[in-house]
Amino acid sequence: MSAAHGLFVTFEGGEGAGKSTQIRLLADALRARGLTVLMTREPGGSKGAEAVRHVLLSGAAEPYGIRMEAILFAAARSDHVEQVIRPALAAGSVVLCDRFMDSSRVYQGVTGNLEQPFIEALERVAINGVVPDCTIIFDLPASVGLERARKRAGGPGEQPDRFEKEELQTHEKRREAFLDIAAREPLRCRVIDATKAQDTIAAEVLAIVEPLLPVGALSHQEHVS
Amino acid sequence: MSAAHGLFVTFEGGEGAGKSTQIRLLADALRARGLTVLMTREPGGSKGAEAVRHVLLSGAAEPYGIRMEAILFAAARSDHVEQVIRPALAAGSVVLCDRFMDSSRVYQGVTGNLEQPFIEALERVAINGVVPDCTIIFDLPASVGLERARKRAGGPGEQPDRFEKEELQTHEKRREAFLDIAAREPLRCRVIDATKAQDTIAAEVLAIVEPLLPVGALSHQEHVS
Ligand SMILES: Nc1ncnc2c1ncn2[C@@H]1O[C@H](COP(=O)(O)OP(=O)(O)OP(=O)(O)O)[C@@H](O)[C@H]1O
Ligand SMILES: Nc1ncnc2c1ncn2[C@@H]1O[C@H](COP(=O)(O)OP(=O)(O)OP(=O)(O)O)[C@@H](O)[C@H]1O
Ligand SMILES: [Mg+2]
Ligand SMILES: [Mg+2]
Repeated sequence: MSAAHGLFVTFEGGEGAGKSTQIRLLADALRARGLTVLMTREPGGSKGAEAVRHVLLSGAAEPYGIRMEAILFAAARSDHVEQVIRPALAAGSVVLCDRFMDSSRVYQGVTGNLEQPFIEALERVAINGVVPDCTIIFDLPASVGLERARKRAGGPGEQPDRFEKEELQTHEKRREAFLDIAAREPLRCRVIDATKAQDTIAAEVLAIVEPLLPVGALSHQEHVS
Repeated sequence: MSAAHGLFVTFEGGEGAGKSTQIRLLADALRARGLTVLMTREPGGSKGAEAVRHVLLSGAAEPYGIRMEAILFAAARSDHVEQVIRPALAAGSVVLCDRFMDSSRVYQGVTGNLEQPFIEALERVAINGVVPDCTIIFDLPASVGLERARKRAGGPGEQPDRFEKEELQTHEKRREAFLDIAAREPLRCRVIDATKAQDTIAAEVLAIVEPLLPVGALSHQEHVS
């Protein structure tokens, strides 16, 4: 944990798992206690990160292949870490980040075809010691996530076609990859059953984060309440 | 050594040590034996590397600090490695590169102020297994290098002023950093006394490289001679 003062919590998991919903609920709960909360997200979250993303999205880096692309994404994350996350932690804030290094591990490892040592070295460069104090992994069967995404898009609730079946398999592989990370790093990661009701999950998330909160901030809360 | 077939030799050392002179002489000697030689240099050496360098030189990355800058340089090196060096080695060529990863180690470590673990992780990302088979380090007292540079620039051979004294100290630190690398990696690195005459050095360089040449290429040479 490089966070000298603050607390760094990341939200991870597949599409439609409820990360963005829960990060908002947690931010509200913590702010209600008088804590300074920074909500941020990847990819993006800083001026430099957006500049690099602009280069990537413009297609300018395309001729140079996935490896250079991955390094440019790491440059974006490095900027996000150095310009936004590290200073906020140093100032004692609670930083909540919607997707972070585990999404890179899972998406580059499962969807992309970059080798693990390359991904690991790149991660080390990008985060430069700013490892999350706690990572909450939202676990959901791929079919449920797809169904939620379909509802969100307003589409019909039909049977999956062949393309969607392939997509389901990829989702399941990513789900397993997230669970693998949780199994390998049990101190950092907590897995949440994301099929439960929103309120139930919100209470679970708060219960995980509460004991980790900066002590000064909590005692301040006790004084004012 | 990731080079399945070819041979990867890098030339390192301070300014004015004779790297560019000797790389040309070695390339000539090897081509005269019928070997396919690729001469290249850093920073640069590929289209993508030049594109990234253009971004860096334009000042567009400046607001984002030395860390992002270093990552962008690594992106350039990665492109140089993947698009130029690795394919040439796979095709059996002898690749001679004027400065490579050791210059980054020395210049970022001594002149820049980036931490060693960061530099190392970035190196791993950039070279991705393409470690030089042999690195020839041209060792020269800083004062001699400065004198050569002065002559090359056509300037007068006066006593060094205060600014130059500081510059001399930085040169000496870099010199020590190159020698440190050689001491830590004696199998890869060979140090050459760069104060000797050009012909003497050329013979020493050839004597180092000759036993490492691809066997097929040498026996072919013997057949045609
Ligand atoms: N516990 C839950 N039960 C049922 N539906 C939920 C639950 N949590 C969130 N949803 C709904 O599922 C959809 C996806 O939620 P959300 O956007 O929070 O997921 P996400 O993990 O951020 O997805 P993405 O990866 O696409 O950003 C939304 O329509 C949201 O209202
Ligand atoms: N062995 C030598 N003895 C004396 N002068 C030399 C010797 N080798 C090279 N020089 C001269 O020193 C100058 C610098 O040589 P060269 O350009 O090869 O060095 P370099 O290591 O490539 O420098 P840079 O790092 O600036 O590219 C040139 O003018 C060259 O002719
Ligand atoms: Mg979301
Ligand atoms: Mg030169």
